[in-house]
Amino acid sequence: MTIQTLPTSARDVRELIRTDQWRGITSGVAPGHVQANLAILPKELAFDFLLFCQRNPKPCPLLEVIEAGSVEPKITAPGADIRTDVPAYRIYENGVFTGETESLVDHWRDDLVSFLLGCSFSFETAMVEAGIPLRHQDLGSNVAMYITNIATTPAGVFSGPMVVSMRPVKREQVVRAVQVTTRFPATHGAPIHIGSPEAIGIQDLDKPDFGDRVDVLPDEEPVFWACGVTPQAVALNCKPPLMFAHGPGKMFITDHKDVDYAVL
Amino acid sequence: MTIQTLPTSARDVRELIRTDQWRGITSGVAPGHVQANLAILPKELAFDFLLFCQRNPKPCPLLEVIEAGSVEPKITAPGADIRTDVPAYRIYENGVFTGETESLVDHWRDDLVSFLLGCSFSFETAMVEAGIPLRHQDLGSNVAMYITNIATTPAGVFSGPMVVSMRPVKREQVVRAVQVTTRFPATHGAPIHIGSPEAIGIQDLDKPDFGDRVDVLPDEEPVFWACGVTPQAVALNCKPPLMFAHGPGKMFITDHKDVDYAVL
Repeated sequence: MTIQTLPTSARDVRELIRTDQWRGITSGVAPGHVQANLAILPKELAFDFLLFCQRNPKPCPLLEVIEAGSVEPKITAPGADIRTDVPAYRIYENGVFTGETESLVDHWRDDLVSFLLGCSFSFETAMVEAGIPLRHQDLGSNVAMYITNIATTPAGVFSGPMVVSMRPVKREQVVRAVQVTTRFPATHGAPIHIGSPEAIGIQDLDKPDFGDRVDVLPDEEPVFWACGVTPQAVALNCKPPLMFAHGPGKMFITDHKDVDYAVL
Repeated sequence: MTIQTLPTSARDVRELIRTDQWRGITSGVAPGHVQANLAILPKELAFDFLLFCQRNPKPCPLLEVIEAGSVEPKITAPGADIRTDVPAYRIYENGVFTGETESLVDHWRDDLVSFLLGCSFSFETAMVEAGIPLRHQDLGSNVAMYITNIATTPAGVFSGPMVVSMRPVKREQVVRAVQVTTRFPATHGAPIHIGSPEAIGIQDLDKPDFGDRVDVLPDEEPVFWACGVTPQAVALNCKPPLMFAHGPGKMFITDHKDVDYAVL
């Protein structure tokens, strides 16, 4: 099923996923709806992880926390089931990737807490609408991501460097890019850095740690945003006995609209 | 010691408090510095309370959480001691007010978690700077506060109605009041309601639930903001075995500046 033939309602898309009729990459799906990164951890780590997100809102913009004993995102998608409504899940045991699954029903435990975190799709839509092209989208590739030398603020067992995504922006559009993304603090918001990659510990733009490299043209600056891979990397850093996350590019689609999260 | 003779540095004011040389109301003290409401709860309630704040950012804008075993606000006031640097503390046992104290040192337990929450002083400064007068400040009284029929989003054991503060604003300045307070989401931000008190369950503006009544003149609208009394009221609602809070009007003064919290 192509994106063109998918329903535009978030609820209907989740229904297709839950009933095994569609399991694609969610970029561009149910346009205008906020999509979420997913991290699921045992309850004994939940306070520390919640505090980590509170202390690091740019890489970890919390949209919703589903408490232990519940599987329903009551705030962002009432009626949904976090165990079945994401196209693919990754399983990590003691910090090691041990497999992918299409349903968490058989893996579920009543002590698991689910964290839904804002993702960059919202501000990317705002950039494109503002006439700022996104090279990775035009190429159909993943955004380039880098581990920086910027430390996150630790909380309990969680600590580690910030991961950023990079998008090349024409010099004359850099100010506009700052303005339009500033409106969306719940989905990473304003850039954390513009220009010189070395200043934030990135030695070679051509070798991203995650995602795909893109050209940065002579009339462009590399612009860096805090990235939703940070909480996942930081969580795995402490080798939790069990953790689930969404499959790459396969986000949870909420009922909330991007516009509802704009600060101005 | 009057405000005029107090030092302008937050650190120096905290030193005066800690050494018992000054214990006044902190409104207008160390101008430009962010001040914080304080709620201290046992660790077993900390996850639920943190989640409550995450779900209700307008009444409960978290500035910092000091984990169990620590008394230092490392992020907002490194070197300070949360047990001694507030002019007065209130003690609640099983949800009942049982006394006030000038130091928590003798009351401290290693399982206590401290929550610092943004207060309205920051956006009030912004309003005054924008030429919007504040009647309660001009009268030297407390702002009028009301319990509404707006439910907060519950989290674990915490739930209850939102408390709001009301400031009368001249009709031609209402839009400007929305704009200047919108810039400060970390300190309650934009109003939650303008005009008709009945629409949010307030029967009589002349009978505030907390603070002092003020006149609302014929050319003014009552404008309502989410209030930092909400988290305290909600916390007491569940009758925690032990809870400490700041004395009324006697906030914790951080090293951070109001301007650093402006979103734009």
